[in-house]
Amino acid sequence: MGKGKEKMEKERITPVKYEEGKLIILDQTELPAREKWIVLENSHDVWDAVKKLKVRGAPAIGVCAAYGICVSMEKSHTCSYDQFRKEFSDVKDYLISSRPTAVNLAWALERMEKKLLSIGDGLCFGPSWRQEEGYLKEELLKEAHAIRREDEESCRAMGEYGLRLLTEISARKGAGEKGPEDQQPITVLTHCNAGALATAGYGTCLAPVYLAAEKGYGVRVFSDETRPLLQGARLTCWELARAGIDVTLICDDMAYSVLKKEKPHAVVVGCDRMAANGDGANKIGTAALAVMAKELGIPFFMFAPKSTIDLSTPAGEDIRIEERDGDEICSMWYEERMAPEGIKTFNPAFDVTENRYITAVVTEKGVVYPPFDENLKRLFE
Amino acid sequence: MGKGKEKMEKERITPVKYEEGKLIILDQTELPAREKWIVLENSHDVWDAVKKLKVRGAPAIGVCAAYGICVSMEKSHTCSYDQFRKEFSDVKDYLISSRPTAVNLAWALERMEKKLLSIGDGLCFGPSWRQEEGYLKEELLKEAHAIRREDEESCRAMGEYGLRLLTEISARKGAGEKGPEDQQPITVLTHCNAGALATAGYGTCLAPVYLAAEKGYGVRVFSDETRPLLQGARLTCWELARAGIDVTLICDDMAYSVLKKEKPHAVVVGCDRMAANGDGANKIGTAALAVMAKELGIPFFMFAPKSTIDLSTPAGEDIRIEERDGDEICSMWYEERMAPEGIKTFNPAFDVTENRYITAVVTEKGVVYPPFDENLKRLFE
Repeated sequence: MGKGKEKMEKERITPVKYEEGKLIILDQTELPAREKWIVLENSHDVWDAVKKLKVRGAPAIGVCAAYGICVSMEKSHTCSYDQFRKEFSDVKDYLISSRPTAVNLAWALERMEKKLLSIGDGLCFGPSWRQEEGYLKEELLKEAHAIRREDEESCRAMGEYGLRLLTEISARKGAGEKGPEDQQPITVLTHCNAGALATAGYGTCLAPVYLAAEKGYGVRVFSDETRPLLQGARLTCWELARAGIDVTLICDDMAYSVLKKEKPHAVVVGCDRMAANGDGANKIGTAALAVMAKELGIPFFMFAPKSTIDLSTPAGEDIRIEERDGDEICSMWYEERMAPEGIKTFNPAFDVTENRYITAVVTEKGVVYPPFDENLKRLFE
Repeated sequence: MGKGKEKMEKERITPVKYEEGKLIILDQTELPAREKWIVLENSHDVWDAVKKLKVRGAPAIGVCAAYGICVSMEKSHTCSYDQFRKEFSDVKDYLISSRPTAVNLAWALERMEKKLLSIGDGLCFGPSWRQEEGYLKEELLKEAHAIRREDEESCRAMGEYGLRLLTEISARKGAGEKGPEDQQPITVLTHCNAGALATAGYGTCLAPVYLAAEKGYGVRVFSDETRPLLQGARLTCWELARAGIDVTLICDDMAYSVLKKEKPHAVVVGCDRMAANGDGANKIGTAALAVMAKELGIPFFMFAPKSTIDLSTPAGEDIRIEERDGDEICSMWYEERMAPEGIKTFNPAFDVTENRYITAVVTEKGVVYPPFDENLKRLFE
């Protein structure tokens, strides 16, 4: 018997929760040492949590912001709709300022505001403003729930599509014909963290892993540590181990040995931005995995929700790659520098995987195969 | 004008020195924070230095052991040749016990003993034993000098062959036709440390880099940090920066971006053991670089002194790969674990680069091209 959905639901992490009127998040800066949950009481708490990366991952930030504006407005007692609207707008601008480049942050808050205006502008406010205000707050909370639920559904959909790909491969390899109980574990290698911690729940490229465990398949994950910030070691290993999933940590330079020796069914990675031709930018180190996977005949799947596919960017070379401070790779080791003073560094945060190395792109609307330029466009028609 | 040999000699590190009757080594466990030189006074000091990796790299260990047995015997005042020979043999066994698997350690000490016996067994010892003992000590020291000099010459020869390869590539790319002063820098990417710190002086795969600087070529090196033990960040960056050579540190998962963007003239790496068919075992992460280099059309050169080529091992799959303790990749980060407790790890210390990814093998006797099975054998004829 597999873990079943119910058991998994308990163990799979949901990093942003709204429970009994409280917004509670897992402080990811404390991982993997401590599982510390904190309550965000007001807009200052939310601003601080986003700013200090206590919550991270585009979808998780969006969900946190949506609930965040609800708990901020909950405490507000205004005299009129105009005043409510004004306060809402101020909180929105303030929260966006915590991480101005996070697209999902602004997107979620603007969707919340749209909801407010679509209801409020149509209402005829009378002497019962106190009740009307309560109604608006309820509607806003419903919208936040919807944002959370939609993200979870989107992740789950990617998970279903991804799992189907993986079980097909596993079946082709002669395992698992008699159903989930009777097979070799589905084995994948992943990089960075595109898991539950980054979303409302299932993650993107780790969604098929959680679903497989829910459905009773054996699963095995190799996790690159992902230098320099170690999202693989700190976050992916943590969330998978917590959910009882078999995870093995390796250094990034060990991936080739794993691919060659363990022959995983696939490499699964997330995507930060995909160009119209299917070139996909993701965490530094991703492109090398794609090259190795192709060389060894291992499928390479990039998980890209529609929101990350940018048809207005023609190709990977048009994606600007952020270069971060070199200190990030020179220090943070022992108590001393791990590299000599004064040397040069090169510290790109992302790289671009060329479309010819990508076996398939998994979206919440289905699996996209080459030729990507044609087939990605069709997703949006 | 380039740096010239004289200037470089001052800056290029020689990690094991014999000066004014003293054996002095650079304590590599203190790098990159401190350049600390220590005097090894007796066999206990030498044993400790080898055991604790204060000296590392097969050739450097061999040189240190050869001088080490000289300084140990220097203090000895025996009554007869038999006693001298007995003491020598005891010190030898004791030193070998510091790192029993280090082939060069035993090799150097056995060569020293052979020298002792070849002289001593032929001498007719009379009442002047004190003088004879002094003579034996002098001859032993000469042998240690010879071991050091031969290693340096071997590295220098690999450097000359390697540099010729690199300048040819550079010339084909249309740079440097008018001589060393007028060209783009010779650019290489390297992994781990096969540099001066590991040998009597020039290193193996870094020898062409030092020679290029001596001869006035511009040189540029990208150094993988080389997880988990960071020999690239801690040692390669340190020794190159100290010699005034342009070095840029990257994380291992950034190598593909560097190969693609900077198009170095070659990837240069050392070799721990090469099979008869040209498959070469080297530090974990090497094989992935070879795959990427081939994919991008960048030459991949493996530097393997004849002593590392093992014709009795048919192919890479016959090389046993050491797996090290997983703690090495889970901790040593901040003050806390960088990965959760209880997860699995996989921590191979080496990988095997298949011969089809190797453009050429550089030895002290010349450059070997495919087919390696035929051409490596010829080296030994």
